[in-house]
Formats: sequence, structure tokens, C-alpha cells
Amino acid sequence: MLIVGERINTSRKAVNEAVEKRGIAYISGDAQKQVKAGADYIDVNAGSRIGREMEDLNWLVEVVEAAVDVPLSLDSPDPKVLIAVARKVKQKPMINSTTAESSRFEAMKAVVQERECDVVALCMDERGIPKSVNQALENASFLVKNLTNLGIPLQNIHLDPMIQPISVNKDNGILAIETIRCIHQEFPGVRTICGLSNISFGLPNRFLLNRLFVVLCIGAGLTGAIVDPLDAKLMTNIIVAETLMGKDEFCRKYLKANRAGNLVV
Amino acid sequence: MLIVGERINTSRKAVNEAVEKRGIAYISGDAQKQVKAGADYIDVNAGSRIGREMEDLNWLVEVVEAAVDVPLSLDSPDPKVLIAVARKVKQKPMINSTTAESSRFEAMKAVVQERECDVVALCMDERGIPKSVNQALENASFLVKNLTNLGIPLQNIHLDPMIQPISVNKDNGILAIETIRCIHQEFPGVRTICGLSNISFGLPNRFLLNRLFVVLCIGAGLTGAIVDPLDAKLMTNIIVAETLMGKDEFCRKYLKANRAGNLVV
Repeated sequence: MLIVGERINTSRKAVNEAVEKRGIAYISGDAQKQVKAGADYIDVNAGSRIGREMEDLNWLVEVVEAAVDVPLSLDSPDPKVLIAVARKVKQKPMINSTTAESSRFEAMKAVVQERECDVVALCMDERGIPKSVNQALENASFLVKNLTNLGIPLQNIHLDPMIQPISVNKDNGILAIETIRCIHQEFPGVRTICGLSNISFGLPNRFLLNRLFVVLCIGAGLTGAIVDPLDAKLMTNIIVAETLMGKDEFCRKYLKANRAGNLVV
Repeated sequence: MLIVGERINTSRKAVNEAVEKRGIAYISGDAQKQVKAGADYIDVNAGSRIGREMEDLNWLVEVVEAAVDVPLSLDSPDPKVLIAVARKVKQKPMINSTTAESSRFEAMKAVVQERECDVVALCMDERGIPKSVNQALENASFLVKNLTNLGIPLQNIHLDPMIQPISVNKDNGILAIETIRCIHQEFPGVRTICGLSNISFGLPNRFLLNRLFVVLCIGAGLTGAIVDPLDAKLMTNIIVAETLMGKDEFCRKYLKANRAGNLVV
């Protein structure tokens, strides 16, 4: 399970303030805590810093790369920003994100071809977020075909089913879960990833829903998640679910996490 | 989701003592607590009381029926005991259990035909507990065919996939989950049920594994579980998982449980 730590995002107040003040200690410390808690990638996002995003994201990348040894997930709506930052990072980056919208896909071509990278590809097109598993799979098919045509290997493609809140439609959970299951059946070798928190929008006790939704997604084959790794109960659930799904030989990871006191009951 | 409360079992020390002393208050109170916590059935099991099972189970049934209004799950290795107790209970009982072993199935025929009942049917035969999904489905097929031949309607058949510990084989979780999924695909209308705790045998922090294994099973379509309903975290997970799986119109049950303070975060 690939864990992308989502905390370094200027839409969070403390991060925005640290970026504003060029507070190296706060950003470094946050990145280190995320890696210690199990992050395989650190996502960096300065998309809320309109007009200053390029400069701020460049600064964030420098600070995070100096603080931790994991690769970065470069997260921006702006392909120009992504291409500039992708050029300079030390390790193979994750690019977040392209979609099956033709204008977005075209604009992102140069980014994903700039260097070897992992690509988060959202299963949405001009029709918007998919309303059925079939519609999501059509978008997945477009993305897999066109990204492989650009030379991206299957295992570098991370399809995101685009989770919608169950408060809007009770079947939005099933829709995402079945999309994940079908992607792994239809496109063997491709990976899946998703942010989780949208599932619980509009409901109380959102953490509770998010922490179990990831378990159901792992049951359907999910291979990556964009999460806050400092949520110890969420991370516990991910370790336990993977063990229960047969992905933990001799339950070694489970037993190691238990011995280290990292499992929150 | 059908919740069968498993606490009234003489293999538990406190229950055995209460049965020994004919302690009505303890048994009544335990049954009432289970129903308050969400049990749809109360399981009664005096199988450990060798030579006195018939008398003790009869006493337990009287006490529990006087204490609560839910139907009983009658749990015994002895068909003679089951038939005697099935005759006297007020509401349609659940009979726990028959198997696909020909001798057990034959011996249980009279029990399941004694009156209208729900039947727990374990997917095992002479070869033992299934080692593959196909073997489990062969047993499921035998059970569905032969129970319907006896006049048991599909919705009264509760197939148990027979969970084995992941400490013995890391794929035992997947085996049970895929068996549940395939049963619902192959035999529409049939229900599934399982005890959970065997999954975690031999590992530390067993509650943690049990509480998430039920979530993965619900993701595969599980319709019933034999559990301790006083485990509030487990019951929270069942409510949340059902909401996430689209089985909770307008998230009503989730919101109601939240308002009642019944969700343990």
C-alpha cells in the first residue's frame, strides 16, 4: 500500500502561515513526522497561493527534499508549475494529476513526459465525475490507453475513482469500491489511489467513516491512498486490513507494528 | 445485517457458573444487554455441559425467552437436544448448525423440518474445512440444494464460510471473503453468516483484527454475524460499514446511532 502524506498543503492554515513566513522548521518537521508515521511520498501543494504558487511550491520542494529521503507528490492545477517543479526534484516524482478531459490531458502531456514519473489520473472527463462504474471504466480505459501511448508503464499509472459523498447519494461508496475492483480486473498491472475524506462530507464523525472506507477500498484492491499519516487509527486500519487481505507474509508487518506500539486499538 | 449475540455460552466461565447455580438475574441481564446493544437473535449454547446439556439448555431458553422478545439461536452439537428445544421456543428459531457432511446432514434433517426455522449451514464436508473457494462452493451447493429440497426457503439458509486463522495461512482471510462474495453471486437470495474471532487466533490484539475483518466481510456481502454485541467498537464498525456500503437510506441509522452516542470513534 502506497501512502501519500497529504499534510503539506497551503489550504491548511498552519502550512499557509509557514509558507508565508518561510518557516523551514515547521515544514521540515511536518514532513519528517509523516515519513516516520509511514508516508512513502510527501505531497506538496501550494495551489491556494494564487499568483505565487510557482515560487512557493519551489520553496516547499527544496525544504521537504532537505528534510526527508522519500520522493514527492507534486500537486498543482497548473501544468506550467508542475513541469518546472518536476524538472528540479531529486527523485522520480508523482504527478498529481491528469484527467480524461481532453484539454487537461493535452495540457498534462508535456508534464508526464518531462521525466520518468508516477501519474495520478482522475477517472473523470468532460461529463464530470462518473455516475456509474461503466462511465468510470470508460475514463479509465482512455487514461490507460493514452498514458501508455506516451510511454508511461502500467505500474506508474495510479487511477483515482473520484470518491463522492454518501450524504449526497447512499450508493457513492459502492460506486467507488466497485470502480476500484473493476479497474484491477480490467487493467491488470495498473494501480489505484484515492483521497478518502470526500466520502464523509456533510456527516458527523467524519474520521470514523474515512477510517473504515479505506478498509473497504483495500478489500476491493486499492493500492494507494492520499491520507494524513499522523491519523494513527487510520494507519492502524491500513496495516490491519492489508494483513487480513493476505498481503502481509507471516503477519510480519502486523506483529512489527504491534511490538513497536504503533497499533491503536 | 443480522446480529446474533453469542455471549450466552457455557464455555464462558460466568455463564457456566450462572447455569450451575440457576442464576436467573445474570442470564436475563446479559440477554437484555445484548438486545439493547443491537442483537437480533440471542444464541444459547450449553454444549460444554456434558450429560446435562438438555436440561440446562431448556432452562436457558426459558430464562432468555422471559427476559427478551427476540428469537433464539439454538446452538448444540446434539440433534436430539436441538429438536427438543426447537419444539418449545416461542418464536421461529435459528438452528446452529448443520453441515455438508452426510452423517451430520442426515441427523439434522429432523431438526430443520420440525418447524419453520432459520438454519446456519457450515460449508464443510467429510474433507474438513474447505481449502479453496471452489471447495467451499461445492459444499454450499450441496447445502442449498438439499435444504431447499427439505422445504427450507433460500432466505432462511445462512451459509457459514468457516473462517480459519490468518496466523496459520496468510490467505485464510481472502479465502473467507471470496467465499462470501461468490456465495452471493452464485446463490442469490441465500444469506451468509459467520463467527469472526477465529480469524485472529494466535495473534496479539485480536479485537483489532476481528473488528476490521467484519468490515471486509460486509464489503463482500456478508448478511449476518455471530458476535459479542457488547463490543461497542465492533458494533460501531458494523453500522459504519453498512452505511458506507449503501445499505443505510439517507444515512439514517448512522445519524441515529451518532445522536444516541452509540458510535465509538
